[in-house]
Amino acid sequence: MFVAMNRFRIVQGREADFERVWAERDTHLDGVPGFLEFRLLRGPEADDHTLYASHSIWTDRDAFEAWTRSEAFRKAHAGAGERRDLYLGHPEFEGFETVLDR
Amino acid sequence: MFVAMNRFRIVQGREADFERVWAERDTHLDGVPGFLEFRLLRGPEADDHTLYASHSIWTDRDAFEAWTRSEAFRKAHAGAGERRDLYLGHPEFEGFETVLDR
Repeated sequence: MFVAMNRFRIVQGREADFERVWAERDTHLDGVPGFLEFRLLRGPEADDHTLYASHSIWTDRDAFEAWTRSEAFRKAHAGAGERRDLYLGHPEFEGFETVLDR
Repeated sequence: MFVAMNRFRIVQGREADFERVWAERDTHLDGVPGFLEFRLLRGPEADDHTLYASHSIWTDRDAFEAWTRSEAFRKAHAGAGERRDLYLGHPEFEGFETVLDR
Protein backbone atom coordinates (compact mmCIF):
# COMPACT_ATOMS: atom_id res chain seq x y z
CA MET A 1 0.00 0.00 0.00
CA PHE A 2 0.93 3.63 -0.50
CA VAL A 3 -0.23 6.41 1.84
CA ALA A 4 -0.22 9.96 0.44
CA MET A 5 -0.29 12.45 3.32
CA ASN A 6 -0.64 16.19 3.36
CA ARG A 7 -0.10 18.18 6.54
CA PHE A 8 -2.00 21.47 6.92
CA ARG A 9 -1.43 24.18 9.55
CA ILE A 10 -4.76 25.93 10.10
CA VAL A 11 -5.03 29.36 11.71
CA GLN A 12 -6.48 29.15 15.22
CA GLY A 13 -10.20 29.82 15.19
CA ARG A 14 -10.62 28.82 11.52
CA GLU A 15 -10.82 25.06 12.11
CA ALA A 16 -14.58 24.85 11.47
CA ASP A 17 -14.17 26.75 8.17
CA PHE A 18 -11.41 24.37 7.06
CA GLU A 19 -13.48 21.30 7.96
CA ARG A 20 -16.47 22.72 6.06
CA VAL A 21 -14.36 23.17 2.90
CA TRP A 22 -13.48 19.47 3.03
CA ALA A 23 -16.97 18.29 3.92
CA GLU A 24 -18.38 20.11 0.89
CA ARG A 25 -15.54 19.20 -1.46
CA ASP A 26 -15.92 16.54 -4.14
CA THR A 27 -12.63 14.65 -4.05
CA HIS A 28 -13.45 12.86 -7.35
CA LEU A 29 -11.77 9.74 -5.94
CA ASP A 30 -14.60 7.21 -6.31
CA GLY A 31 -13.76 4.74 -9.04
CA VAL A 32 -10.18 5.97 -9.51
CA PRO A 33 -8.06 2.84 -10.20
CA GLY A 34 -6.06 1.80 -7.15
CA PHE A 35 -7.79 4.18 -4.71
CA LEU A 36 -8.71 2.53 -1.39
CA GLU A 37 -9.62 5.08 1.27
CA PHE A 38 -9.51 8.75 2.23
CA ARG A 39 -9.40 10.32 5.69
CA LEU A 40 -9.14 13.85 7.00
CA LEU A 41 -7.64 13.93 10.50
CA ARG A 42 -7.45 16.66 13.15
CA GLY A 43 -4.21 16.63 15.15
CA PRO A 44 -2.60 18.58 17.96
CA GLU A 45 -3.03 22.32 18.58
CA ALA A 46 0.03 24.57 18.66
CA ASP A 47 0.18 28.21 19.84
CA ASP A 48 -0.83 29.66 16.49
CA HIS A 49 -2.41 26.79 14.53
CA THR A 50 -4.08 23.38 14.58
CA LEU A 51 -2.40 20.59 12.63
CA TYR A 52 -4.55 18.58 10.22
CA ALA A 53 -3.50 15.68 8.00
CA SER A 54 -5.17 14.12 4.97
CA HIS A 55 -4.40 10.49 4.19
CA SER A 56 -5.31 8.94 0.88
CA ILE A 57 -4.53 5.25 0.70
CA TRP A 58 -3.69 3.50 -2.59
CA THR A 59 -2.82 -0.01 -3.69
CA ASP A 60 0.66 1.25 -4.70
CA ARG A 61 2.64 4.39 -5.55
CA ASP A 62 2.06 3.94 -9.30
CA ALA A 63 -1.72 4.19 -8.83
CA PHE A 64 -1.30 7.42 -6.85
CA GLU A 65 1.05 8.92 -9.44
CA ALA A 66 -1.27 8.01 -12.31
CA TRP A 67 -4.07 9.84 -10.45
CA THR A 68 -1.94 12.99 -10.11
CA ARG A 69 -1.72 13.10 -13.91
CA SER A 70 -5.47 12.53 -14.44
CA GLU A 71 -8.49 14.70 -15.22
CA ALA A 72 -10.02 13.58 -11.90
CA PHE A 73 -7.04 15.10 -10.06
CA ARG A 74 -7.38 18.36 -11.98
CA LYS A 75 -11.08 18.57 -11.05
CA ALA A 76 -10.40 17.75 -7.38
CA HIS A 77 -7.87 20.57 -7.14
CA ALA A 78 -9.76 23.16 -9.22
CA GLY A 79 -10.48 25.20 -6.07
CA ALA A 80 -7.01 24.82 -4.53
CA GLY A 81 -5.48 28.18 -3.76
CA GLU A 82 -8.79 29.63 -2.57
CA ARG A 83 -9.28 30.26 1.14
CA ARG A 84 -5.58 30.94 1.70
CA ASP A 85 -6.61 32.89 4.81
CA LEU A 86 -7.22 29.55 6.58
CA TYR A 87 -3.60 28.37 6.27
CA LEU A 88 -0.24 29.09 7.84
CA GLY A 89 2.14 28.27 5.00
CA HIS A 90 1.74 25.64 2.30
CA PRO A 91 0.56 22.07 2.86
CA GLU A 92 3.46 19.64 3.22
CA PHE A 93 3.24 16.47 1.15
CA GLU A 94 4.83 13.18 2.25
CA GLY A 95 4.43 9.81 0.51
CA PHE A 96 4.82 6.57 2.48
CA GLU A 97 5.13 2.90 1.48
CA THR A 98 3.79 0.19 3.79
CA VAL A 99 6.52 -1.86 5.48
CA LEU A 100 4.29 -3.77 7.93
CA ASP A 101 0.49 -4.03 8.15
CA ARG A 102 -1.09 -5.88 11.08
CA MET B 1 -11.51 6.81 14.95
CA PHE B 2 -8.25 7.86 16.55
CA VAL B 3 -4.87 7.53 14.78
CA ALA B 4 -1.77 7.46 16.99
CA MET B 5 1.29 8.32 14.90
CA ASN B 6 4.96 8.27 15.72
CA ARG B 7 7.53 9.76 13.35
CA PHE B 8 11.05 8.27 13.39
CA ARG B 9 14.17 9.70 11.73
CA ILE B 10 16.45 6.75 10.91
CA VAL B 11 20.15 7.16 10.19
CA GLN B 12 20.94 6.62 6.50
CA GLY B 13 22.08 3.07 5.86
CA ARG B 14 20.34 1.67 8.97
CA GLU B 15 16.87 1.34 7.42
CA ALA B 16 17.03 -2.46 7.13
CA ASP B 17 18.07 -2.75 10.79
CA PHE B 18 15.17 -0.55 11.87
CA GLU B 19 12.67 -2.56 9.79
CA ARG B 20 14.02 -5.80 11.25
CA VAL B 21 13.46 -4.54 14.82
CA TRP B 22 9.80 -3.95 13.97
CA ALA B 23 9.34 -7.19 12.04
CA GLU B 24 10.61 -9.16 15.04
CA ARG B 25 8.81 -7.09 17.66
CA ASP B 26 5.69 -8.34 19.41
CA THR B 27 3.45 -5.29 19.61
CA HIS B 28 1.07 -7.04 22.07
CA LEU B 29 -1.85 -5.31 20.34
CA ASP B 30 -3.98 -8.32 19.43
CA GLY B 31 -7.08 -8.39 21.56
CA VAL B 32 -6.50 -4.95 23.12
CA PRO B 33 -9.96 -3.31 23.44
CA GLY B 34 -10.56 -0.71 20.74
CA PHE B 35 -7.46 -1.58 18.68
CA LEU B 36 -8.20 -1.77 14.93
CA GLU B 37 -5.01 -1.78 12.87
CA PHE B 38 -1.26 -1.15 12.92
CA ARG B 39 1.02 -0.03 10.08
CA LEU B 40 4.69 0.81 9.79
CA LEU B 41 5.35 3.15 6.85
CA ARG B 42 8.56 4.21 5.09
CA GLY B 43 8.55 7.82 3.93
CA PRO B 44 10.85 10.24 2.14
CA GLU B 45 14.64 10.27 2.40
CA ALA B 46 16.42 13.42 3.56
CA ASP B 47 20.16 14.15 3.41
CA ASP B 48 20.96 12.45 6.70
CA HIS B 49 17.96 10.21 7.46
CA THR B 50 14.91 8.34 6.19
CA LEU B 51 11.55 9.26 7.70
CA TYR B 52 9.34 6.43 8.99
CA ALA B 53 5.91 6.65 10.58
CA SER B 54 3.96 4.16 12.65
CA HIS B 55 0.17 4.41 12.66
CA SER B 56 -1.95 2.58 15.18
CA ILE B 57 -5.66 3.01 14.59
CA TRP B 58 -8.21 2.87 17.44
CA THR B 59 -11.96 3.16 17.79
CA ASP B 60 -11.43 6.35 19.84
CA ARG B 61 -8.86 8.30 21.88
CA ASP B 62 -10.06 6.76 25.17
CA ALA B 63 -9.20 3.23 23.92
CA PHE B 64 -5.70 4.40 22.97
CA GLU B 65 -5.15 6.12 26.32
CA ALA B 66 -6.38 3.09 28.27
CA TRP B 67 -3.82 0.99 26.34
CA THR B 68 -0.98 3.38 27.30
CA ARG B 69 -1.77 2.64 30.96
CA SER B 70 -1.93 -1.16 30.47
CA GLU B 71 0.39 -4.11 31.09
CA ALA B 72 0.28 -4.84 27.31
CA PHE B 73 1.74 -1.38 26.65
CA ARG B 74 4.52 -1.94 29.19
CA LYS B 75 5.42 -5.27 27.53
CA ALA B 76 5.37 -3.77 24.02
CA HIS B 77 7.82 -1.06 25.10
CA ALA B 78 10.09 -3.20 27.28
CA GLY B 79 12.86 -2.95 24.66
CA ALA B 80 12.38 0.76 23.90
CA GLY B 81 15.59 2.69 24.36
CA GLU B 82 17.69 -0.09 22.84
CA ARG B 83 19.23 0.46 19.39
CA ARG B 84 19.49 4.21 19.88
CA ASP B 85 22.22 4.16 17.23
CA LEU B 86 19.48 3.77 14.57
CA TYR B 87 17.78 7.09 15.39
CA LEU B 88 18.37 10.79 14.83
CA GLY B 89 16.61 12.27 17.86
CA HIS B 90 13.53 11.03 19.64
CA PRO B 91 10.37 9.76 17.94
CA GLU B 92 7.71 12.46 17.64
CA PHE B 93 4.22 11.49 18.74
CA GLU B 94 1.06 13.04 17.24
CA GLY B 95 -2.52 11.95 17.93
CA PHE B 96 -5.27 12.59 15.35
CA GLU B 97 -9.07 12.35 15.44
CA THR B 98 -10.98 11.43 12.29
CA VAL B 99 -12.94 14.33 10.79
CA LEU B 100 -13.93 12.65 7.50
CA ASP B 101 -13.62 9.01 6.37
CA ARG B 102 -14.52 8.08 2.80
